[in-house]
Amino acid sequence: MTGQGHDRDTRWMTLALALGRRGMGQVWPNPAVGCVIVQGDVVVGRGHTQTSGRPHAERVALDQAGDAARGATVYVTLEPCAHTGQTPPCADALIAAGVVRVVVAAGDPDPRTAGQGIARLQAAGIAVDVGCLRRVAEADHAGFLARITKGRPWVTLKLASSLDGRIATASGESRWITGHAARHAVHALRARHDAVMVGAGTARADDPMLDVRDLGDVRQPVRVVLSRDLNLPINSRLVQTARDQPVWLCHGPDADTREWARVGVVPIECEIAHNRVDPLSALRALAARGITRVLCEGGGHLAAALLQAHLVDELVLFQAGVAIGADGLPSLAGLGVTDLAQAPRFRLDHVSPVGADVMQVWRPL
Amino acid sequence: MTGQGHDRDTRWMTLALALGRRGMGQVWPNPAVGCVIVQGDVVVGRGHTQTSGRPHAERVALDQAGDAARGATVYVTLEPCAHTGQTPPCADALIAAGVVRVVVAAGDPDPRTAGQGIARLQAAGIAVDVGCLRRVAEADHAGFLARITKGRPWVTLKLASSLDGRIATASGESRWITGHAARHAVHALRARHDAVMVGAGTARADDPMLDVRDLGDVRQPVRVVLSRDLNLPINSRLVQTARDQPVWLCHGPDADTREWARVGVVPIECEIAHNRVDPLSALRALAARGITRVLCEGGGHLAAALLQAHLVDELVLFQAGVAIGADGLPSLAGLGVTDLAQAPRFRLDHVSPVGADVMQVWRPL
Repeated sequence: MTGQGHDRDTRWMTLALALGRRGMGQVWPNPAVGCVIVQGDVVVGRGHTQTSGRPHAERVALDQAGDAARGATVYVTLEPCAHTGQTPPCADALIAAGVVRVVVAAGDPDPRTAGQGIARLQAAGIAVDVGCLRRVAEADHAGFLARITKGRPWVTLKLASSLDGRIATASGESRWITGHAARHAVHALRARHDAVMVGAGTARADDPMLDVRDLGDVRQPVRVVLSRDLNLPINSRLVQTARDQPVWLCHGPDADTREWARVGVVPIECEIAHNRVDPLSALRALAARGITRVLCEGGGHLAAALLQAHLVDELVLFQAGVAIGADGLPSLAGLGVTDLAQAPRFRLDHVSPVGADVMQVWRPL
Repeated sequence: MTGQGHDRDTRWMTLALALGRRGMGQVWPNPAVGCVIVQGDVVVGRGHTQTSGRPHAERVALDQAGDAARGATVYVTLEPCAHTGQTPPCADALIAAGVVRVVVAAGDPDPRTAGQGIARLQAAGIAVDVGCLRRVAEADHAGFLARITKGRPWVTLKLASSLDGRIATASGESRWITGHAARHAVHALRARHDAVMVGAGTARADDPMLDVRDLGDVRQPVRVVLSRDLNLPINSRLVQTARDQPVWLCHGPDADTREWARVGVVPIECEIAHNRVDPLSALRALAARGITRVLCEGGGHLAAALLQAHLVDELVLFQAGVAIGADGLPSLAGLGVTDLAQAPRFRLDHVSPVGADVMQVWRPL
């Protein structure tokens, strides 16, 4: 390929990736794919996977292109599907539309596709190039890929603390440590995740809604509470709104689940570790139900358990300009770290002010 | 004054302020003044207060200008002194040099000057303008001004912690939470302060040197330890180097000071509050000895005591990409905050990555 052709591919794939990201948190159990169809230098079709996962990005872009797809080049951020689900396979749709070249960012490890989408296109005489901006695409699809390859979703851990790492005063007061802009950023984070997860202590102490507000018409995340004994008040805001926005309760084997289905809450039995719901067991149960991206919003015990089990893929720390002191509630419970060399280490992805607060994004080393 | 003249004044005063800052931490008990002498559009003299406070900025700039000072305009960041100390007053030197205009950023509240420098210049027929970049100059001279007006130095509180606000593991391991670049930034901070202060617990646990390294030939800060009972090991690095770089020990009234002078340590008697050396009493004692800027490097008890007494003028937080957990040592001891509204609040001055770590600078609200 010429340098110019490579530059052009990179440019259109960048657009396809940007389109695909619009679906993050909105399309589970499907991947948030983006697609651009180009005829010469003109974009004739653009699409991204729609809310709840259908139609797929390719179908949207093909419908927009119509006859203009004939002879065109297609940029798609993940290998087109080859299996017939609730819609016919995208590979077949691309062949039927008469496109002549398909540029794919990353392969789809889903065993129902796994190279078959590409093979089917090639068998039809379509030129296929794989790997354009592959690493960016794999980062964007990390939740979907983790669900397929590791059997668990991507986990973002959010902490909102004082300058000295406290999430509440000694009396439990935590509203509002961070300001309006940081809270709005948290709502944007929630919208980009399929599920929001908290420990039962946080659910009881804060009585949170864990919904997305002030961001228009979005698919609300599933709200997940880990509680070994299903210890969640029936009059909590989560339970009271469970019929409008899903609440999944990850509990231990001995919990009594009879009452919960009646109020619209989904009980999910998980394994126990260290007297608490084992976080990996819970994450596997979420993945089995289609969840690809989870935002954990605490509390300190659940956050510590995730860190100890090396289950945090991204740590987002909001810090407010306030000092609470050692009598406040810590953002992380004990990790049993005595030797600094054992402590979980992170590299900085980015840092910036958010309103009056500071947002730091860290990735595990 | 015309807009153009105003712009020119601002430009030259900005240069004078930049020169003055070179003396920060180096010139106590004097202010770190900068001076620029301009003839037409040509700088004929530049100066800043020299190490240990003499000669003054004006004297340095006048010596550089020589005869070219005649008819020139002088930009100086603080009112020229009017009293004869170890050198003749700068106001007289400016008059003798034949300058025609002096632009002063901020007045000097030192009762030995306090307007008399300006009055003496005006009496000699020199045009004097006061207030050019006054707020910047007052920020730069904040330590000197606090010493004169409040009887205590400027206090910068430095915290170096994990993401969750811990400064050591449960076993006390604290080297190295932050990386090389952050430690270098701490040395630069020390160089810009007259004194570095720690609590006795930190001095015992870490056996620090509290000196400036890898920054060339600088005046080393006075090292201050607060210890009610003078509980500092005689074989600590601080005590062992006390004859080369001052160590001042702020202690309570009942401490036995007899041994300390012999090893070169200066004992300073302070008041006691809550069973510890009262930090305000210690800061007043430092100011009385000429200290204008103090960097407090912990530990958690001293940091908390300073915050509780509203004695922190700037908080510099270095955070490393590591999680230690609640069994680690907190950066701040208890503040007795139950209601968030009582908690010390700060506004962000700036935030940036420093090597692999993040540096945040906060000012009290």
